[in-house]
Amino acid sequence: MKTTRISHITLEFELMELKTAHPFGISYGSAAAHKNILVKLHYKDLVGLGEASPASYHNETPDTVQALYHQWQGEEIFGDDPFAIAETMRRLDQSVAANNSAKAGIEMAMHDLAGKLAGKPTYKLLGLSALSQPITDFTIGIDSLEMIEKKTHEAVEAGYKVLKVKQGTAYDKEIIARVRKVAPNMPLRVDANSAWTPKQAIAMAKFLFEHNVQFIEQPLPKHAPIADWQLVRDQSPLPIFADESISRSTDVARLAGVIDGVVVKLQKTGGLLEALKVIHVARAHCLQIMFGCMIESSLGVTAAAQLQSLVDHLDLDGALLLANDPYVGARYDDGYLRLQDLPGLGVVPR
Amino acid sequence: MKTTRISHITLEFELMELKTAHPFGISYGSAAAHKNILVKLHYKDLVGLGEASPASYHNETPDTVQALYHQWQGEEIFGDDPFAIAETMRRLDQSVAANNSAKAGIEMAMHDLAGKLAGKPTYKLLGLSALSQPITDFTIGIDSLEMIEKKTHEAVEAGYKVLKVKQGTAYDKEIIARVRKVAPNMPLRVDANSAWTPKQAIAMAKFLFEHNVQFIEQPLPKHAPIADWQLVRDQSPLPIFADESISRSTDVARLAGVIDGVVVKLQKTGGLLEALKVIHVARAHCLQIMFGCMIESSLGVTAAAQLQSLVDHLDLDGALLLANDPYVGARYDDGYLRLQDLPGLGVVPR
Repeated sequence: MKTTRISHITLEFELMELKTAHPFGISYGSAAAHKNILVKLHYKDLVGLGEASPASYHNETPDTVQALYHQWQGEEIFGDDPFAIAETMRRLDQSVAANNSAKAGIEMAMHDLAGKLAGKPTYKLLGLSALSQPITDFTIGIDSLEMIEKKTHEAVEAGYKVLKVKQGTAYDKEIIARVRKVAPNMPLRVDANSAWTPKQAIAMAKFLFEHNVQFIEQPLPKHAPIADWQLVRDQSPLPIFADESISRSTDVARLAGVIDGVVVKLQKTGGLLEALKVIHVARAHCLQIMFGCMIESSLGVTAAAQLQSLVDHLDLDGALLLANDPYVGARYDDGYLRLQDLPGLGVVPR
Repeated sequence: MKTTRISHITLEFELMELKTAHPFGISYGSAAAHKNILVKLHYKDLVGLGEASPASYHNETPDTVQALYHQWQGEEIFGDDPFAIAETMRRLDQSVAANNSAKAGIEMAMHDLAGKLAGKPTYKLLGLSALSQPITDFTIGIDSLEMIEKKTHEAVEAGYKVLKVKQGTAYDKEIIARVRKVAPNMPLRVDANSAWTPKQAIAMAKFLFEHNVQFIEQPLPKHAPIADWQLVRDQSPLPIFADESISRSTDVARLAGVIDGVVVKLQKTGGLLEALKVIHVARAHCLQIMFGCMIESSLGVTAAAQLQSLVDHLDLDGALLLANDPYVGARYDDGYLRLQDLPGLGVVPR
């Protein structure tokens, strides 16, 4: 734990060691332990909370996040106005490009501070409501077929309403068959996490369409050419969403004509204000929007839930997958994430 | 003056009769008297202020605005949460399409209420700063050449830093010559208010380029085909901005490839939240952004000024043109509009 006084807002941070109930597998690899970084911004007698959840496939690690936090502690970068969020984020963007999870941890902590200062929930300050829709899904990670069947059983028994299934293996079709055996009629979306070629994506889209899947996330590599997206979108019977390929709003403008939807995540945008931009650009282009998350505690998930009234689909199950969620925030309630009427993000230690 | 109690937020409204110092001429016509509608949203012991400034070329009149306000007084439409601005505006959009100045009057009054409830300026609740840039321009309306020369003299003597000149007459080149005679080096932009054909626009763009003009607003009719915008943009040596053709963010997405900039106005977007969307979509497409206004008092102009830190150019001279501004808000200070650190919009009766 390290504290440095910089102007009036000071940064303190520490590692958060999160454990998932099951090892969480996606096309990039599998892990049961996840290192996030807890952000505490101090201002007068208040503390704003944030969480950075770095992903190596987005060019960040727990070490790069902490290196930037050390650097920013040594600079006059946070200023003295917790409400000046856009201005502070411009300074961080000038300090270093990308590194959006490091920035997201700071940005959500500023919203938490601002809300606590104003005595109002963050979503209210942004003119939004706590409309508890849409329903969030629950993710079945990559695993052995036996474990996938077992996890699907558990998810159905736990009362989850919508499933998201990770793909990107040599047995993708078998995974879907096992899930559909246990949950034949449950709304289902799949996430290939960049694993397929265009030809694979088109073939899988046809297969998944036959198995009543709603849409496909990120079938193609992060930096796939526009022509590949166009080809897959033209030939896929299912809507195609971009996730890894979309960090900020300029990415939406670039891909708008060749996708059907976008996945917005605070850890990719660098915070709520840029997430609003991604949402607004997607809407202006008549794209569908899903709000997602990484493996995050209820702190990061509740920050994302502030914007849930603006999107079509929720994939905010990061905290639901944990065995040791250290925070209490938006409560999972029969499919919905219920925001609390507390100042700021509305998150407290468990 | 009419009051009806609807749930917890109630609407009161009245006509505002504004007079410009000179008759204000644009390509659609000239007038010295302007009828806006003052909005007062009552919630508990607070009053949120807003202003609707309808324009016939945007399909609204003072009568249509008042007709909608009468209708909305009779419905449970404003709800009981002044912070639920997006939700309330969705209800108004369901009630009637377009009619954005009527909606803008309501929406800015809700921001004023929310800010007063939170005890913070509106721009702060939105995460923004009172960065006092850019400089606002001052508009020289259409008039006789003698009056244009006189008005330009007055503007220079008053210390204005940037001029905007209205076009759309049979003597557009002579207007520019007179302005440039008095103010040879002052930054200058022109606004054709839909008056030109593509061929006229291209010829004028070349002439205006020779006279050191910065950019051209709305050279073409509101509903000009994309191909006409493309043609003018391809052949114009000056950047082309769209004003009347852009109301909401979907319009930006539609025109993004064939223009260089957009003019955002609260009276076209229907309020601040949609203005943010227009700004975000324009930025994502790497377009320039000017924030403009209609003939409005310091109430409407100060609502717009909340978002000034996000744009490249300001055309917020609506209140500067008035002989009888009934409100005090953002103060004009040597080119800049200085926001006050007051709750809500920060506007009080003069």
